[in-house]
Amino acid sequence: MATASGDTHNQQESGLSKLQFVPFSSALDAGFWHELTQKKLNEYRLDETAKVIKGYYFNGDPASLPARLTLEFSAFDVNATTPAHCCPAVGTLYNTNTFESFKSCDKKLLLEKAANEIWEAIKSGDALENPVLLNKFLLLTFADLKKYRFYYWFCYPALCLPEGVPVVQQPVCLDKRFSTTQIQALQKAYDELCKMEGVTALPYFLIKYDDNSVLVSLLKNWNDFFQDQKQKVTIGVYDPSNFTQYPGWPLRNLLVLTAHRWGKSHDSFEVLCFRDRTMQGERDVTHSIIFEIKLLELAQSSDCPKAVGWEKNQKGGMGPRMVNLSECMDPKRLAESSVDLNLKLMCWRLVPTLDLEKVVSAKCLLLGAGTLGCSVARTLMGWGVRQITFVDNAKISYSNPVRQPLYEFEDCLGGGKPKALAAANRLQKIFPGVVSKTSKGWSRYLLVINAALGFDTFVVMRHGLKKPRQQESGDSCSKIPFSSADLLGSSLFSNIPGYKLGCYFCNDVVAPGDSTRDRTLDQQCTVSRPGLAMIAGALSVELMVSILQHPEGGYAVASSSDDRMNEPPTSLGLVPHQIRGFLSRFDNVLPVSLAFDKCTACSPKVLDQYEQEGFNFLAKVFNSSHSFLEDLTGLTLLHQETQAAEVRKQARDSGADPTCVRLCGNLTHLHCEHAMPCGDHTHVHRIVGH
Amino acid sequence: MATASGDTHNQQESGLSKLQFVPFSSALDAGFWHELTQKKLNEYRLDETAKVIKGYYFNGDPASLPARLTLEFSAFDVNATTPAHCCPAVGTLYNTNTFESFKSCDKKLLLEKAANEIWEAIKSGDALENPVLLNKFLLLTFADLKKYRFYYWFCYPALCLPEGVPVVQQPVCLDKRFSTTQIQALQKAYDELCKMEGVTALPYFLIKYDDNSVLVSLLKNWNDFFQDQKQKVTIGVYDPSNFTQYPGWPLRNLLVLTAHRWGKSHDSFEVLCFRDRTMQGERDVTHSIIFEIKLLELAQSSDCPKAVGWEKNQKGGMGPRMVNLSECMDPKRLAESSVDLNLKLMCWRLVPTLDLEKVVSAKCLLLGAGTLGCSVARTLMGWGVRQITFVDNAKISYSNPVRQPLYEFEDCLGGGKPKALAAANRLQKIFPGVVSKTSKGWSRYLLVINAALGFDTFVVMRHGLKKPRQQESGDSCSKIPFSSADLLGSSLFSNIPGYKLGCYFCNDVVAPGDSTRDRTLDQQCTVSRPGLAMIAGALSVELMVSILQHPEGGYAVASSSDDRMNEPPTSLGLVPHQIRGFLSRFDNVLPVSLAFDKCTACSPKVLDQYEQEGFNFLAKVFNSSHSFLEDLTGLTLLHQETQAAEVRKQARDSGADPTCVRLCGNLTHLHCEHAMPCGDHTHVHRIVGH
Repeated sequence: MATASGDTHNQQESGLSKLQFVPFSSALDAGFWHELTQKKLNEYRLDETAKVIKGYYFNGDPASLPARLTLEFSAFDVNATTPAHCCPAVGTLYNTNTFESFKSCDKKLLLEKAANEIWEAIKSGDALENPVLLNKFLLLTFADLKKYRFYYWFCYPALCLPEGVPVVQQPVCLDKRFSTTQIQALQKAYDELCKMEGVTALPYFLIKYDDNSVLVSLLKNWNDFFQDQKQKVTIGVYDPSNFTQYPGWPLRNLLVLTAHRWGKSHDSFEVLCFRDRTMQGERDVTHSIIFEIKLLELAQSSDCPKAVGWEKNQKGGMGPRMVNLSECMDPKRLAESSVDLNLKLMCWRLVPTLDLEKVVSAKCLLLGAGTLGCSVARTLMGWGVRQITFVDNAKISYSNPVRQPLYEFEDCLGGGKPKALAAANRLQKIFPGVVSKTSKGWSRYLLVINAALGFDTFVVMRHGLKKPRQQESGDSCSKIPFSSADLLGSSLFSNIPGYKLGCYFCNDVVAPGDSTRDRTLDQQCTVSRPGLAMIAGALSVELMVSILQHPEGGYAVASSSDDRMNEPPTSLGLVPHQIRGFLSRFDNVLPVSLAFDKCTACSPKVLDQYEQEGFNFLAKVFNSSHSFLEDLTGLTLLHQETQAAEVRKQARDSGADPTCVRLCGNLTHLHCEHAMPCGDHTHVHRIVGH
Repeated sequence: MATASGDTHNQQESGLSKLQFVPFSSALDAGFWHELTQKKLNEYRLDETAKVIKGYYFNGDPASLPARLTLEFSAFDVNATTPAHCCPAVGTLYNTNTFESFKSCDKKLLLEKAANEIWEAIKSGDALENPVLLNKFLLLTFADLKKYRFYYWFCYPALCLPEGVPVVQQPVCLDKRFSTTQIQALQKAYDELCKMEGVTALPYFLIKYDDNSVLVSLLKNWNDFFQDQKQKVTIGVYDPSNFTQYPGWPLRNLLVLTAHRWGKSHDSFEVLCFRDRTMQGERDVTHSIIFEIKLLELAQSSDCPKAVGWEKNQKGGMGPRMVNLSECMDPKRLAESSVDLNLKLMCWRLVPTLDLEKVVSAKCLLLGAGTLGCSVARTLMGWGVRQITFVDNAKISYSNPVRQPLYEFEDCLGGGKPKALAAANRLQKIFPGVVSKTSKGWSRYLLVINAALGFDTFVVMRHGLKKPRQQESGDSCSKIPFSSADLLGSSLFSNIPGYKLGCYFCNDVVAPGDSTRDRTLDQQCTVSRPGLAMIAGALSVELMVSILQHPEGGYAVASSSDDRMNEPPTSLGLVPHQIRGFLSRFDNVLPVSLAFDKCTACSPKVLDQYEQEGFNFLAKVFNSSHSFLEDLTGLTLLHQETQAAEVRKQARDSGADPTCVRLCGNLTHLHCEHAMPCGDHTHVHRIVGH
């Protein structure tokens, strides 16, 4: 399984064979890749700088397993506890942004850099104090998050002694050299040292023994520990290898340290590769191996020794490995991650301040699931919105599927499926992670966006967002972050805060009626250029998302066409009140209009009445003629007054009556709106989200 | 089945029972409704004025059938031949635009009007000369073409004699009164009269008979025909009724005419209701009925008699009938008609000059079936385009369905379906009438539109449409309708005809490379605001449709932002060269740019080389570095010259070198283009249509 890998030196050179070592096999589990994905998406993004990660290795595996350096999800938390009876290794992660830079990365240089750090730690004595400095590793990765393929190349840098490590006595199992008493004494001594150090495993230690006792100590205590033992010293290493002839990789840097420190003062060194297995409840260290080697001194002035350590790939050659996690992932979770990815990529470089959570967590209620509703729903899905509810009691007809992108021909058969249900089901088919429902009513939503189509014109607008009723008088501003414009007072059409904006019906001088009655065919159905609904639907959602990015949300001051040259108020740009589009000119304008105090939908009189009477009020509206709402709101009176004012005005030549001007201004505005064929309420679509 | 319906007068009044008549049952077949649909869609549109239509009735049905007035597809052609042995009836169609106006139509008034016309024809004698004037009918309809429901109310106006028609001798079958000889003589005389008149059926005729002979004549010959027969006269009527006691409706107006003309001069009249059946090859008129009645004179000065005739509905009450053709239509044809309807409605009122055929017959090749391609395909379907071909060799990945509106979660499983195939299949599911295919190559198309996305910006443009090569020198303008601007020469950015416009690559100062290599994740995939592709996709199609509406098509002079205030060149508006959109400002601009003589895609050098070497040239481009195309087109030289010019310019203070200005101008333009992140060719989409 693992192949024993020696130094480049010929092992016959000095008459003694050279020691060979079992390299680490990297063991990067799915949790590691999952965590890397999350880090890359949310934290590293385009940052390619080196990151500190942590792995561990174990000396208690069954005989068949290779020596593994394991990285799991906890690898990114350098303060995470190392699993019991395992030794930590501190690594450096180089996660590249592109496969190209992964491939072209200078691996020789990375290895040399790591080797040098180890060499410096050896020379300075830091490695004596903190032997984990000898346990370095490198990990070069490229995460192709589009396909869930992870390319990686692992390296455990090992410094090489120039002459290799001549073996004086070949390795034998510990029970060939130690008595049972000695073995038990070793276990006890090791356990006590660990306990003293507050760990459950020690990578390197020193051993002294005689027939009756075994003593162990820390590396840094060498001089004291071995002061009475000038010739024979034993070094212990926590050994992940299971081979009876070969120690694992961690010994290598320890030997270099030893050669550097004590190569001069000792002819040979005994090495105990401590292996500590528990099989069926029985602890067993007898398969540990022990042998004797020579180490030539490495002078303080020496250059950093040559280093090796890049792992071979599965084919046994020098090259990276690849793991394809898409195959073992749940397709639905894969879809969710992929959708997330596309969104998070926006935050990497383009809009780092984008608050995706505000968008993704929005709950959206779609009133209507026709040409506009379908396009709106699809755009919401694109933005990662997961909670979408449809209200529409129509059935799907044959002309729908080519313009209503949630339906197909089959949905039209047998009289047609109910739209709301079919739309909700289609969303599930597109993306199983969505929670799509149908509804017959609607609860309170915080932001209302609506779209309406003419033949080649559209309006997309946010409705004015009223202040909560109790705050209108008295202690306002306590909850809602009103902008300074609010306090300063707003001029006619600039700096109008959200709560002063009109709703869709503020532009109407008559109450809305049943627009499906008494209409010719081309008025009954959406006779519009087919691209129009897609454009208006998409803009509705984009407007909603922009508003959600504004710190004041629906209360944000409305942007107008004039603001196009100014610094935008959100990371995504402007937050207009209305977008009115003219397809024949490929043009959009951004008008702003104030709430109309006689609006048949949002004026105080209507809201008061609704608050008092609830559904009874609605029933009254539905069952009576237009004039009911017009009388209630004062529209009827306004019409009469306007006519009277016109008469007075004509009689007076040029009128300076401010009331008259106000009224005319109002009506001119309203008529101007009506000149654009957007006022057809059958084609109106609303999304409401919070 | 049919109920005998008498006048309102009590039949016991004069001691004699009053004659009752069998009303017509309207028989409007599917062909009639189909033709009405076509007329409404393409001809009448919103025209509600009365239309002349034609029906017919038959006197040879089996005994079980009701008397029917049949309207079929030919009803709208007043010159169409009446089926053999049938009598024509001329009707007036009132097709209303709305169900409301259908319901509120004043049916009493319509009936009175028709009755008056009949009465006038009787008084003037016109009805004598042309008895078909007595056979009038009315048809009031509302065609709900969205649901294929047709509401209608049929009326066969019958004038009523004030005293009713007292029966002197009850009806008996003809063979009870006529001998076989007489019957045969009657048949022969009738056939000969028809032949003489050049018809196969006569609605009304006069009869004289004795034991051995039967003579018949036309109504207008009354005086001559009956001059020797002062007391007993016999009137013949072609009778659609099968009842042994009751004549059909056509007799009624004839009796009014008779009463008016000859009521004074005769005590009673014999009536022969001629019924002429062929059963198993045997002609039979013996079930004709014959009876005797009294007719009181109607003076010339009389008012128009009261009239009746509105048909009862299926429930036996006074009310309209409805036929729902959607249930008996092939769903696929129904879908096709419904899609057509939505398009044709545009021509009714909004854009009467719209040439839909140019759009619907376009063959479109989509290069790419991703976010843009899917939206483009859907908008094309909305416009009724029936031939759509996809080129895309990618597979559907998990992140696609929420942004690429032709795919679903299931398409991603097992590595993902091929996009082109899945897209083509989805179109079929949406609308079976579409011919959607996949393709690996592309033939010559006449109009190239492309779209490209940035994060919140897009460009949609038509490529300059080169003149056919052979026409460039010499006898140009012979085939292509160049605009006058072409002849006058065009200024820098206005009045640029289509053949001088740039292509997408004209704005690049480097040759396009493989943009999927060496890119970070957020550069590799479409990191764009999710609504952007929908907007750009829809605009691409709308631009294409607008260009198709221009008489010069792709050669049309490009509209710019400045043209927004001018009279648009097509019924759908402007035909810009480019639409560049900025979602953060909800703004579009319409730049125009000239073809670049060093373009790596459309410059004469590239086209020449391709013409000479064909695919070999392409292979050369694909397999060599960027510099190949740059060297060929002269871009390399341009870069060098520009640098040199910059140096000269700096040395000279203010340079007046026109070459330098030109080059800088060019590059400034190009750099300005690049400031907008639309130049990423991975996200480019093209639709090409002719």
